[in-house]
Amino acid sequence: MAKEDKAQKLETLRHSASHIMAEAVQSLFPEAKFGIGPAIEDGFYYDFDLPRPLGPEDLPAIEARMREIIAANLPFSNEEISVKEAYKLFADQPYKIELIKDLGVDKVTIYRQGKFTDLCRGPHVKSTDEVKAFKLISVAGAYWRGDEKRPMLQRIYGVAFTRSVDLDEHLKKLAEAAKRDHRKLGKELDLFSLHEEAGPGLAYWHPKGATVRQMIEDFWKAEHRRRGYDIVYSPHIAKVHLWETSGHWNFYRENMYSPMEIDEIQYVIKPMNCPFHILMYKTQLRSYRNLPMRYAELGTVYRYERSGVLHGLARVRGFTQDDAHIFCRPDQLEAEVKDVVELAQFMMKSFGFDEYEMMLSTRPEKFTGTVESWDMATEALRNVLERLKVDYKVDPGEGVFYGPKIDIKLKDALGRLWQGPTIQVDFQLPERFDVNYVGEDGKEHRSVMIHRTVLGSMERFFACLTEHYAGAFPVWLAPVQAVLIPIADRHLEYASKLCADMRSRDIRVHLDDRSERMNMKIREAQLNKIPYMLVIGDKEVENGTVAVRLRNGEDLGSQDFPVFVQRMESIIKSRELQEL
Amino acid sequence: MAKEDKAQKLETLRHSASHIMAEAVQSLFPEAKFGIGPAIEDGFYYDFDLPRPLGPEDLPAIEARMREIIAANLPFSNEEISVKEAYKLFADQPYKIELIKDLGVDKVTIYRQGKFTDLCRGPHVKSTDEVKAFKLISVAGAYWRGDEKRPMLQRIYGVAFTRSVDLDEHLKKLAEAAKRDHRKLGKELDLFSLHEEAGPGLAYWHPKGATVRQMIEDFWKAEHRRRGYDIVYSPHIAKVHLWETSGHWNFYRENMYSPMEIDEIQYVIKPMNCPFHILMYKTQLRSYRNLPMRYAELGTVYRYERSGVLHGLARVRGFTQDDAHIFCRPDQLEAEVKDVVELAQFMMKSFGFDEYEMMLSTRPEKFTGTVESWDMATEALRNVLERLKVDYKVDPGEGVFYGPKIDIKLKDALGRLWQGPTIQVDFQLPERFDVNYVGEDGKEHRSVMIHRTVLGSMERFFACLTEHYAGAFPVWLAPVQAVLIPIADRHLEYASKLCADMRSRDIRVHLDDRSERMNMKIREAQLNKIPYMLVIGDKEVENGTVAVRLRNGEDLGSQDFPVFVQRMESIIKSRELQEL
Repeated sequence: MAKEDKAQKLETLRHSASHIMAEAVQSLFPEAKFGIGPAIEDGFYYDFDLPRPLGPEDLPAIEARMREIIAANLPFSNEEISVKEAYKLFADQPYKIELIKDLGVDKVTIYRQGKFTDLCRGPHVKSTDEVKAFKLISVAGAYWRGDEKRPMLQRIYGVAFTRSVDLDEHLKKLAEAAKRDHRKLGKELDLFSLHEEAGPGLAYWHPKGATVRQMIEDFWKAEHRRRGYDIVYSPHIAKVHLWETSGHWNFYRENMYSPMEIDEIQYVIKPMNCPFHILMYKTQLRSYRNLPMRYAELGTVYRYERSGVLHGLARVRGFTQDDAHIFCRPDQLEAEVKDVVELAQFMMKSFGFDEYEMMLSTRPEKFTGTVESWDMATEALRNVLERLKVDYKVDPGEGVFYGPKIDIKLKDALGRLWQGPTIQVDFQLPERFDVNYVGEDGKEHRSVMIHRTVLGSMERFFACLTEHYAGAFPVWLAPVQAVLIPIADRHLEYASKLCADMRSRDIRVHLDDRSERMNMKIREAQLNKIPYMLVIGDKEVENGTVAVRLRNGEDLGSQDFPVFVQRMESIIKSRELQEL
Repeated sequence: MAKEDKAQKLETLRHSASHIMAEAVQSLFPEAKFGIGPAIEDGFYYDFDLPRPLGPEDLPAIEARMREIIAANLPFSNEEISVKEAYKLFADQPYKIELIKDLGVDKVTIYRQGKFTDLCRGPHVKSTDEVKAFKLISVAGAYWRGDEKRPMLQRIYGVAFTRSVDLDEHLKKLAEAAKRDHRKLGKELDLFSLHEEAGPGLAYWHPKGATVRQMIEDFWKAEHRRRGYDIVYSPHIAKVHLWETSGHWNFYRENMYSPMEIDEIQYVIKPMNCPFHILMYKTQLRSYRNLPMRYAELGTVYRYERSGVLHGLARVRGFTQDDAHIFCRPDQLEAEVKDVVELAQFMMKSFGFDEYEMMLSTRPEKFTGTVESWDMATEALRNVLERLKVDYKVDPGEGVFYGPKIDIKLKDALGRLWQGPTIQVDFQLPERFDVNYVGEDGKEHRSVMIHRTVLGSMERFFACLTEHYAGAFPVWLAPVQAVLIPIADRHLEYASKLCADMRSRDIRVHLDDRSERMNMKIREAQLNKIPYMLVIGDKEVENGTVAVRLRNGEDLGSQDFPVFVQRMESIIKSRELQEL
């Protein structure tokens, strides 16, 4: 079967599973009102208005009822009926009535199986027993038509596959993903917290999470300096007037917070760093010889997200972008973009992401700037991707109105994609702020601006990293890199000496001097995903060695301490991703 | 003469100079209305309501008129008159009338010299020729009685001394201070900018200033980690509710910005980091064994300051505190405070501040917490100061209502004092937020909290550092540490090699490859206060040397490059304050 046919078949199967679930819910809750129930990636959902809220404990009963419907092998049938008939048929289903009205047509299609009839375009499977490999996964609230002012319905999610083996594999992956969920690990490993009472979507980085973040930031800054970037700092607030000039106040306002007042002038907390970097650029007349100029900033921005879409650190309201703005001449654009793509590749590789998807988005229907400048910039982006021989897709017309862009999505250990680096050419802000340079001809020319991040944001990148490594961060990032475990009190003196030695080398080491059993200390260290456990008993004190265990349980046995600690230093310094 | 008598005499002299200036202004502007004219540190001022604004160009004429009055040797005389007479006398002086009203007395004293009469308690010198060593310095706007809703008067500042030699010395110091003014150097050295149009009092750190800041921050973080602090990150906004709990919303509101709204809930940008650290502390039950816990954060806070008091980076509306909060048991307080004072001393020494003043502020009349806990904490602070054998003064009753504190003021190269580290014990927030630990007895006990900074804020500390060094930052902080100056094009290849070598050692080096004359390049490097100028000609290429000049003009002659670069590395690594 062709790939598309297969995908189409799976979608039909999932859509039918959603109808079967609706029938099951109807039989358990005859007063249920039905919203919509489409197929989605890996499965399906259906939204219900029910007399009582559901919990995960309700899913087995619904699933059991679904299996009965499937066992009964009921055929799916469809029929075209007039809108008038439809109104009658769905008289007690207000959401369906609303959908019919909005369709604005004379005739609609309905699908039936067993005792359930739905407003539906189809297609569906022939009969219910085609749906075998499925499972209900979760239940969540969802506003009718995604509108917070409409009723909150209950959405039941399920997954469905053609073959049981695919379902099993998927469920295993879901279980693994749940184990790696950064929100769960964030608590277990004491990495960060969120505080609803102080404001949802705002991250508090605890010592351990903050250590990982600082290591990332230090590395990021050093690498940017090395590649000719200048680090800058800008404020978190500015007069609304600045955002009017930049256009954000008109075009981006729904993502911005409401203004605050200072001396009767309105200020707003920044959703972007760009206007600030432009103000710095404009403090001097810039010559063609000064370009390119690359301002980099770990800039914390605040953007409004509906509370329903907030998700741990992956989707927040305040986040620190690893931002930079490059001001260059048009003839420098291609070289600059190439450097950025290479930097992004280097960064992803450094953190252990070897696979990613690249996307080139080109001129949309509505755009600013000239067609020539768009063509020039798009050509520059394309040339870079071609020259670097990377796989990429083109998304025609999907560029932002102010310029073409390259987006990169990271693939994590479970094959899931995370939004990562982005590189955007901008013709808009240089116009709005009159950003120029004096050319070799002595005349003023418009500068080209590139917006780029190579990680995305510290919050989302850290969430991704946590799930990618299931919390077992590479040694150079690990909050605690080694724990010293003396077996008895008489080994404490030697252990303290080693601890001081390791600290003097800036190794983050913890001396577990509690009077607990060795095995318990080892188990705890493993739970905390500390890369190295260095156990110290009589033999180790005598020989100047340490007994090394890795967090994966591997036993490296007795190791000469000076040799081992040097190996550790080298692993940390070269940012190796493996403990060995 | 006793010190106090001398000070009293100087104050009288300065006060009389202010009256002489008022007479001079009156003779030049007969329609002048007079505000007040007190003696201040180093001199005096007088506030005038004048028919036209004054500029510095007006000061010589006023000064000349003052010299005539002094030469005429007019006696000062005083007289007590009834309020009724005073109203008549000052009938055309509305500000004086207001002052008389506010005095609420029956009789007032007036002082006369020459044609000028003032409402004044005195005392004054015998006659005008006692005032000899004076100079008018500047003119500035000042609201009548400091109230923005009252008229803006014009304040003329002058300085006056008993002896000309003191005046000359003071003027020299003023000139030196003007040369070192961080606002001036900030522009000249391209360190930072402020943008009125985007909001006054908000700092933009340009690449060079940001480099210095990053070096300070990196050092600060490493030193804090070494001393057992944990670095954390917290958001910049929180619900108003959190600030109600902390008490800031009631007691600190005039320094906070107006709230913004998110999902119909009010949020405010943070003026402090403390409540955030408390939320993190409270995510777990803490045991007496976990304490002390030390959360450190370079936290950017926003506080309202009247636009009139904003001053470069020294007084701003947004600033990054080098903040930390220590949660400890009462029995740990003294040891913790000692560590903080030692850290503060270490920090000041590292940046070249060898002199400072310490102040211990004790229990005020209004206070929270018990007298016992205040006594305990004050004793702990005092013990630390005694044990460390530092000079300190006690400011009785000047502690904040929530606990006693130690303030440290840095003395800069010109002997001026800058507000620096502060260490505050807090009994208030642990109560408000119910901050506890489980004691050895298994019961909950109230934690003690210490607020502390060891630099103050990055902005003010950087302003102070810039003025202390007149922009010639120590090598480890210098934005550009060395410049390579090839004499001719044929020396470029060798210079590039050296440049790459130095960069690989993380030395911030600039290769000046412009085809300009060597002397011009050296002059520019000196203006930019770059520590080392490495000139490269035929001899240097041949011998593998560099000709080294320092920014103070000193010529170190030919130096073996490998030896020199190692010396530089060691100066940077050990943060030596001298170039040699």
